[in-house]
Amino acid sequence: MSLHDSLVVIDGTQYSNWNRQIFEEMREGGVAAVNATIVYWENARETLSRIAEWNARFERHADLVMPARTMNDVLVAKRSGRIAILYGLQNCSPIEDDIGLVEVFRDLGVRTMQLTYNNQSLLATGCYEACDGGVTRFGRAVIEEMNRVGMIVDMSHSAERSTLETIALSKRPIVISHANPSFFHAAKRNKSDAVLRALAERGGLVGFSLYPFHLKNGSRCTTGEFTDMVARTVDMIGVDHVGIGSDLCQAQPYSVLEWMRNGRWSKQTDYGEGSAEHAAWPDPVNWFRSNADFPKLTEALARAGFSDAEVAKIMGGNWMRILCDAERRD
Amino acid sequence: MSLHDSLVVIDGTQYSNWNRQIFEEMREGGVAAVNATIVYWENARETLSRIAEWNARFERHADLVMPARTMNDVLVAKRSGRIAILYGLQNCSPIEDDIGLVEVFRDLGVRTMQLTYNNQSLLATGCYEACDGGVTRFGRAVIEEMNRVGMIVDMSHSAERSTLETIALSKRPIVISHANPSFFHAAKRNKSDAVLRALAERGGLVGFSLYPFHLKNGSRCTTGEFTDMVARTVDMIGVDHVGIGSDLCQAQPYSVLEWMRNGRWSKQTDYGEGSAEHAAWPDPVNWFRSNADFPKLTEALARAGFSDAEVAKIMGGNWMRILCDAERRD
Repeated sequence: MSLHDSLVVIDGTQYSNWNRQIFEEMREGGVAAVNATIVYWENARETLSRIAEWNARFERHADLVMPARTMNDVLVAKRSGRIAILYGLQNCSPIEDDIGLVEVFRDLGVRTMQLTYNNQSLLATGCYEACDGGVTRFGRAVIEEMNRVGMIVDMSHSAERSTLETIALSKRPIVISHANPSFFHAAKRNKSDAVLRALAERGGLVGFSLYPFHLKNGSRCTTGEFTDMVARTVDMIGVDHVGIGSDLCQAQPYSVLEWMRNGRWSKQTDYGEGSAEHAAWPDPVNWFRSNADFPKLTEALARAGFSDAEVAKIMGGNWMRILCDAERRD
Repeated sequence: MSLHDSLVVIDGTQYSNWNRQIFEEMREGGVAAVNATIVYWENARETLSRIAEWNARFERHADLVMPARTMNDVLVAKRSGRIAILYGLQNCSPIEDDIGLVEVFRDLGVRTMQLTYNNQSLLATGCYEACDGGVTRFGRAVIEEMNRVGMIVDMSHSAERSTLETIALSKRPIVISHANPSFFHAAKRNKSDAVLRALAERGGLVGFSLYPFHLKNGSRCTTGEFTDMVARTVDMIGVDHVGIGSDLCQAQPYSVLEWMRNGRWSKQTDYGEGSAEHAAWPDPVNWFRSNADFPKLTEALARAGFSDAEVAKIMGGNWMRILCDAERRD
């Protein structure tokens, strides 16, 4: 058995245009579990439909995918050659203004929720706002409730002050499910040393992103550059606090990118990390085009000098730990 | 005809438990139009039901109340002994995350919308938050859209920086429909000299509140103290920029106060301007208990030395001007 085959690979973020081919690539790539984004701007009712769509996929492709009702199901999936699906929210829009919906969506299988998606939310400030006022009154109540029910706070798209305040407020570790360090590439979505250090000090995790806008040299980023970033981050915050959050968006049409960027909030077109001239999806790096490429990540990490135990943590072990801890209701 | 009977009295904010008796008191009090709050935390769908409830009242009490389809209807109502009803939103919750709903609700008769109600909203910061990040990306887009369709921005429950930014951003005058100056009573809901001056410089209006939490000496505030406040404000910003926004909440049960204060956002009880020991509705001042008391306001202003023309502006003329101006689509 190869090193990769022995791992429990968990990807902290994907939002693909799910279909049988992608599920087959996941199996080919040895992926045990994926935290699948189910919403960007959807409200409570719309989110229920996204969950219903997953239920339909579980029925139709039962030989390939299954819901992770508990984290033990990830191991069940791995053993049976299937992929366990976790739900992640990239925005707090599903809970609308109702604190009671945190527990409702946790009971429906939502494991992670971002407090913001780029813009100001009712809870905190997104990384595209000019000013970050920090965690709001409702935000404090929601963090407490997420801690109580075991839904992990995710600050991937949040602004600096809001993120630092959330790390301090949360009684449980939080995650940045998909972003890279700013020292690697100074994008609005990437994170400062201060954030990464505070995150790790409280037991949290950052999932490294393969989305070209988050990478040095974009689509031309090499495996060596990527693993250098991993190594430097591990030197800074320790190997227990890093993972993968690939941000793979396979086979999505441009209309989905427009939805991510504009939601319903603007009459003008916002181009997010792109621009009017380069509005479209960026080309993926040539060594990570689909879920079938996960073994290349494992190989690159091993080649960069990480031990088998370290590779295991980075490729899924740390995600497993934090997801299992969140599942415990003390 | 008395001075009061000759006026077009417009109240900039009320949220009463509407019934026939209250409408009769409005007629007795010589009220031509009321900007009736229809929501605090309601979402789009719930707001449609609040509007449908008003439609039912217009049917049932057609001899007493009518909708103001245009501001001319206020004069029609006055001539026919009825009261014209305008709709005001005390929160932006009805538009949810959808900029297109601004025009939809304007077409349904909404004249004013607060960008926030105490808490952080998607648009700006409320006066109860610890930190005010100002107008958000979505907020800027919404102000522009409200300007376009003629829905007046109301910052009664907003924080200082957000209010100043909004005044600067809005191409049309904005209002603070119901609040008093901080110099009169230093409540979180009252407004600084800087805000009042900026508001007036851009043609806006503040509606003086009769809600005891906004008054010096609370429920014991006298007419003389109230008219002194009016006079000092007029000295500061001019008689064209003040009006009445009584904030009358007649016959509302405690459960409505709880809804205003807590919405669905908190599992703990928030007491707003009250406290655990004094949670209930405050007693009204003894000279303004219902809509029948509007003539006492007119008398008090005249007694305080305001000319008939000034009293006419304060009691409704300024509201009429700003509401007519908003109705014009250039």
